[in-house]
Amino acid sequence: MVKVKVMRAVGERNDAIAREIREELARKGIRAVNLMSSPGSGKTALLEKTFAHFAPSHPAAVIVGDPFTTRDAERLERAGGLAFQLNTEGSCHLTAPLVRAALDGLDLSGVKLLFIENIGNLICPASWDLGESAKAVLLSVAEGADKVEKYRKAFLIAHAVLITKSDLAPSCDFDLDYAREGIAALNPHARILTVSAKTGEGMEGWYGWLREMVL
Amino acid sequence: MVKVKVMRAVGERNDAIAREIREELARKGIRAVNLMSSPGSGKTALLEKTFAHFAPSHPAAVIVGDPFTTRDAERLERAGGLAFQLNTEGSCHLTAPLVRAALDGLDLSGVKLLFIENIGNLICPASWDLGESAKAVLLSVAEGADKVEKYRKAFLIAHAVLITKSDLAPSCDFDLDYAREGIAALNPHARILTVSAKTGEGMEGWYGWLREMVL
Repeated sequence: MVKVKVMRAVGERNDAIAREIREELARKGIRAVNLMSSPGSGKTALLEKTFAHFAPSHPAAVIVGDPFTTRDAERLERAGGLAFQLNTEGSCHLTAPLVRAALDGLDLSGVKLLFIENIGNLICPASWDLGESAKAVLLSVAEGADKVEKYRKAFLIAHAVLITKSDLAPSCDFDLDYAREGIAALNPHARILTVSAKTGEGMEGWYGWLREMVL
Repeated sequence: MVKVKVMRAVGERNDAIAREIREELARKGIRAVNLMSSPGSGKTALLEKTFAHFAPSHPAAVIVGDPFTTRDAERLERAGGLAFQLNTEGSCHLTAPLVRAALDGLDLSGVKLLFIENIGNLICPASWDLGESAKAVLLSVAEGADKVEKYRKAFLIAHAVLITKSDLAPSCDFDLDYAREGIAALNPHARILTVSAKTGEGMEGWYGWLREMVL
């Protein structure tokens, strides 16, 4: 019982800070997208292409969560984004106080689009509001179409679901129709996009979704 | 501070139960392997092949952790294993009390090899002792070789690391040497195995490692 009570207090503090972040970003005209997925589903590769696409007319920024390394932030700086690395020292999800600390260290003048690249984990991040405008969940075809139902909370709360690494679909026996139907049954409002950052397939749909949000 | 204290109490209770499980399994001559990985790295496919290989001379059992579904346990029963499904209702890792409950529901007569298929998550499960004899961590080539350093805790504590879905390596630009060197640098004692449950590549090495433990 004690554990439940303490966890509730932590959650309430998180949600209060998330509300403040959401209001502040709205005042500044910035839209924030919280990207959630398993390790290796291609969040950073997607953002590399996205930064290159939107810069310089709509410069984008990213807050990168990572248990230990800083490689992703370096990759994204090279791709033309403004990147802030949050090392969580092994923790399994980002929280609103961590995002607050990152925002205090970022100059977002001129930025309309802010990505929050969450820790590679399809479970814990789904329970934490970060003050984002929208949540996008990535599922790579290599992970398998059955993961929608297994990790359903992330898919339930997603505004967009990206089925990534579509170039690998033939080698992975990935059942795209089954996955799309499963996502749509759980969450009829989610925009479902099939993309490959490698070949560019479907990326226009993703850019279009971002443009609808920002413009 | 309160949170830390409560979490420590939860951890201590977990570890006490894990010690009891370890002693009980040792008395019964059963070796338990805790399988940890991201979602979709191929834990269930690996076990399907493993069960088929060891049955009937060394019947194996599995305790399958899953946030919501029961599909993996059904797959493994069909493959000739004795399977017990633990649904964690969205929780992100297995705990020793959950394994204790599963063991109380399993008749392990004649079983020498028990697998514990942890929740698909490369972070949280690494912090929980389940009373296993050995920990095996899977990393699929589709996830990328940089995941070793990012999710280093799991690799640090692994007795065996399986680089899975090796048949996809050519399409994934997976740098096998880089991954192997990274794992060996972090954890020189881990047995590193490259396998494909689909084509059978490298599976003999995995069976050999299990046989060394059991026989």
